[in-house]
Amino acid sequence: MMGVDGPGDRYVVGVDFGTLSGRALVVRVADGAELGTAVHEYRHGVIESALPTGVPLPPDWALQDPEDYRDVLRHAVPAAVAAAGIDPARVIGIATDFTACTVLPTLADGTPLCEVPELRNRPHAWVKLWKHHAGQPQADRINALAGERGEPWLNRYGGKISAEWQFAKGLQLLDEDPEIYRRAVRFVEAADWIVWQLCGAETRNICTAGYKGIRQDGRYPSADFLAALDPGFTDFVDKLDGPLLPMGARAGALTAQAAAWTGLPEGIAVAAGNVDAHVTAASAQALVPGHLVAIMGTSTCHVVNGTELAEVPGMCGVVEGGLSPGAWGYEAGQSGVGDIFGWFVEHAAPAGLDSHQRLSELAAAQPVGAHGLIALDWWNGNRSLLVNHDLSGLVVGLTLATRPADVYRALLEATAYGTRMIIEAFAAAGVPIHELVVAGGLTANRLLMQIYSDVTNRPLSLIGSAQGPALGSAIHAAVAAGAYPDVYAASAAMGRVERDAYRPDPDRARAYDALYAEYRSLHDHFGRGGNDVMSRLRAIRNAAVEQSAAQVTTPLEVVA
Amino acid sequence: MMGVDGPGDRYVVGVDFGTLSGRALVVRVADGAELGTAVHEYRHGVIESALPTGVPLPPDWALQDPEDYRDVLRHAVPAAVAAAGIDPARVIGIATDFTACTVLPTLADGTPLCEVPELRNRPHAWVKLWKHHAGQPQADRINALAGERGEPWLNRYGGKISAEWQFAKGLQLLDEDPEIYRRAVRFVEAADWIVWQLCGAETRNICTAGYKGIRQDGRYPSADFLAALDPGFTDFVDKLDGPLLPMGARAGALTAQAAAWTGLPEGIAVAAGNVDAHVTAASAQALVPGHLVAIMGTSTCHVVNGTELAEVPGMCGVVEGGLSPGAWGYEAGQSGVGDIFGWFVEHAAPAGLDSHQRLSELAAAQPVGAHGLIALDWWNGNRSLLVNHDLSGLVVGLTLATRPADVYRALLEATAYGTRMIIEAFAAAGVPIHELVVAGGLTANRLLMQIYSDVTNRPLSLIGSAQGPALGSAIHAAVAAGAYPDVYAASAAMGRVERDAYRPDPDRARAYDALYAEYRSLHDHFGRGGNDVMSRLRAIRNAAVEQSAAQVTTPLEVVA
Repeated sequence: MMGVDGPGDRYVVGVDFGTLSGRALVVRVADGAELGTAVHEYRHGVIESALPTGVPLPPDWALQDPEDYRDVLRHAVPAAVAAAGIDPARVIGIATDFTACTVLPTLADGTPLCEVPELRNRPHAWVKLWKHHAGQPQADRINALAGERGEPWLNRYGGKISAEWQFAKGLQLLDEDPEIYRRAVRFVEAADWIVWQLCGAETRNICTAGYKGIRQDGRYPSADFLAALDPGFTDFVDKLDGPLLPMGARAGALTAQAAAWTGLPEGIAVAAGNVDAHVTAASAQALVPGHLVAIMGTSTCHVVNGTELAEVPGMCGVVEGGLSPGAWGYEAGQSGVGDIFGWFVEHAAPAGLDSHQRLSELAAAQPVGAHGLIALDWWNGNRSLLVNHDLSGLVVGLTLATRPADVYRALLEATAYGTRMIIEAFAAAGVPIHELVVAGGLTANRLLMQIYSDVTNRPLSLIGSAQGPALGSAIHAAVAAGAYPDVYAASAAMGRVERDAYRPDPDRARAYDALYAEYRSLHDHFGRGGNDVMSRLRAIRNAAVEQSAAQVTTPLEVVA
Repeated sequence: MMGVDGPGDRYVVGVDFGTLSGRALVVRVADGAELGTAVHEYRHGVIESALPTGVPLPPDWALQDPEDYRDVLRHAVPAAVAAAGIDPARVIGIATDFTACTVLPTLADGTPLCEVPELRNRPHAWVKLWKHHAGQPQADRINALAGERGEPWLNRYGGKISAEWQFAKGLQLLDEDPEIYRRAVRFVEAADWIVWQLCGAETRNICTAGYKGIRQDGRYPSADFLAALDPGFTDFVDKLDGPLLPMGARAGALTAQAAAWTGLPEGIAVAAGNVDAHVTAASAQALVPGHLVAIMGTSTCHVVNGTELAEVPGMCGVVEGGLSPGAWGYEAGQSGVGDIFGWFVEHAAPAGLDSHQRLSELAAAQPVGAHGLIALDWWNGNRSLLVNHDLSGLVVGLTLATRPADVYRALLEATAYGTRMIIEAFAAAGVPIHELVVAGGLTANRLLMQIYSDVTNRPLSLIGSAQGPALGSAIHAAVAAGAYPDVYAASAAMGRVERDAYRPDPDRARAYDALYAEYRSLHDHFGRGGNDVMSRLRAIRNAAVEQSAAQVTTPLEVVA
């Protein structure tokens, strides 16, 4: 709902930093009405093949430029305030949420190392985006050693630390560019770095410290463990530690500089950093235990509060207070969802059928199972339950009669099977899932939503806002500004959800049970050691690409 | 080579009946020079979804209209003679080759049942094309019973009778339309039917009788076996049996009617029927034992002569004199090759990349293994070594970085791995393969040829004619007309081959060994019982499609 400015109304601004752009949203404190919004695309987007300076990048890298984040504050925030038509003087707080684990090395004052002129050509000086997966060997070492030593925190992460997270990315940094590692006085989540830019003070939030930084029971992994990984890594936690804030806390006051960037009043409340997925639970009124929120965009993140601590094999993590104070927040995820559908439309759909709408129309007309296909949705690896970024996508059942909409539908279904695997893993470990609440850009695809309802055999509720993360940030800004006593009260007043927007069809749900059994069997065969062909193919691929690059160099050297 | 008409030269006409069209070729008897050629497209092509009369067809059906074959005689033959610029009076013989097992039910005089007016709406009255796969349940029954009873002929077919062959197609006919079965006085290969049309006499050729009709050691399967399958099937062999001719034999003289169709002299020699793949061995000068000919088009057929009888698991068949008198002819095949590449270009390549040429250029630039993919080339089932048309295609290793040319190259490679499986199976069973000779339309794809050479680690020779089957037929016509004493002499004089046109690169061959090992492991897992998901997905698909069709019908009945 979009509201209108009323006399005496107060406002908050939520800023959501996504993978390709940042969005600002102006929200009324009283009822969460969305007054105005604006988006700013990152100039450099995702940096995958070469640095802006021209330096080429190896496979599986994904970087960003931190200046693109500041540009969101400079452009999107004033544009949203202007679009809302409100007096900026009535804005009482600002909060942000970010992709995670997106992390950067900085000097002591927060200056990103990639902004130090002599370091601009060093890939490791840049922001490593969440989907930077080149730290898989380091993640493997961390997991092997933690398993060997029986580190108590390992099972809080489903038994595996992800290559996407701080310790894998930090260890890759140390391995591959020790000088940059040494010069990184701080190693900071972009979620906390942006707050630092806004209020001038370094803080860390309990959410990313827990889910991405292996902080459990008040402690990071021991120096002893780090030294056993690599003596040079012993000091890693020193680069991470900082004043730790619970979710919804006030991190500080907006600085004069940030006020100048944003056009907002100097001194207003700046909330602790947050993560796009996690903050969405507040906007979907889904902080209730057992209400699983699936934030579906390029990837999917699942978050759910529980009343007890449970260790779920293959989940991303459980963090006390990770979503909101006083509950155990659970996270799981699928590392490719919308990205896969987008890949299909761009790279695998013929002319005339290369649109989501046309493919969805054709796919919707099919009975369940009529395409004869099963896919494994691992185009971008598997985040839960297998926690392995070396896994890859598979399609089985292709025939000469297979048409593009068949494969497209199989891909939609594959991601739904992946979500069902996660729901069943939670339930089996003692975290019952009572309700599914979907947020994110993919809610617009009605076929996809119905498939999720049919495959999981559960009613689906939809978040009532198209800007779930930004609204969630605004809710946190209102709490940080003292307008509500806590996130629960603010979520109840400002969040929105459409209950049971989709209901499962019993016949389709039954038909999907048989297909899901096939998915599960392929999932376990290729993901749990039956055939490690995916990892081997990736290794062969990487070696072939590297060898080919080396061969291109050789003749040139001979000539010189 | 295209020759010119010289005084005193004699000519033969070879006519090749393919899947979508028929081609006539005028050839000089003395040296095999190709003087002129013409193609006639079948008006009805492959009849897959509905009869020309509108009757819908179930999945996996593939029919043809026999009148389309006669039209080839009427149009392509005179056009080829005209193109050659020769005097038709100097043509001394005509021979034909056909796809197989392509088979039709006829009256006693050879009239196709689909040309009997009251039977035109009956799908089983039409020609069943080689790739009609709906007889798989019948093939399964034949194989189960033959295995149980220890039928001596079973191992001559690698342990499995194909759903494509006469007995499976005949039993499906009996099961599903017993009246048509009863009215089918003759059940005849199109290869023999077209000869009947030309010379007015019914004959059977040793090649299709052996490879497609289970004729071994002078006998068809016993009446006892047929009765055990179904008492109504006991008389099936009566519909098949007829005067049996060796390859290259004269079947009869061109009738006045056929002379009128073709413009050729009445009374010239008509050769025994033949099969497109098998006849190509003659044109590639590859009747030498151990010279494996791969005829690569929409599908691939492999034929090779051997000096001894061996039983090769999963091969299509071994027939004494099946390629040429005095040798054991072996056949194997891949049921989808060019068809799969064509499917990809038509249904899975985005705009701008939807051409074989562009995809091949991009794919050729990659080092081996750089795409990180393995495919199983079973889009149209597996003919050898698994002999299972319920199998389907698989691609593994897909990532967000996968591009169309990557998948295209993986498909080319998959078919090369499939050929290597067949070569190794022959060698393991005591039929050594010394040389690979490639024929067919796909020889034009240089990347594909190099991949086959690298994957099999063997030099590749290429047939020296773009019209291998038609030239092979012409060679057989020359023998039937008495211009040469036997097929060997005619092949040596009229055939053509370019020796070692491609040679394997040792580095690429080594790299392919690792990928082939992955292919082999997936092949065995999905093809030999590790996971029968492909068969189950096909069953689910067929049930879903049928149920959906039934549901469309139900409301109409309710209304009526």
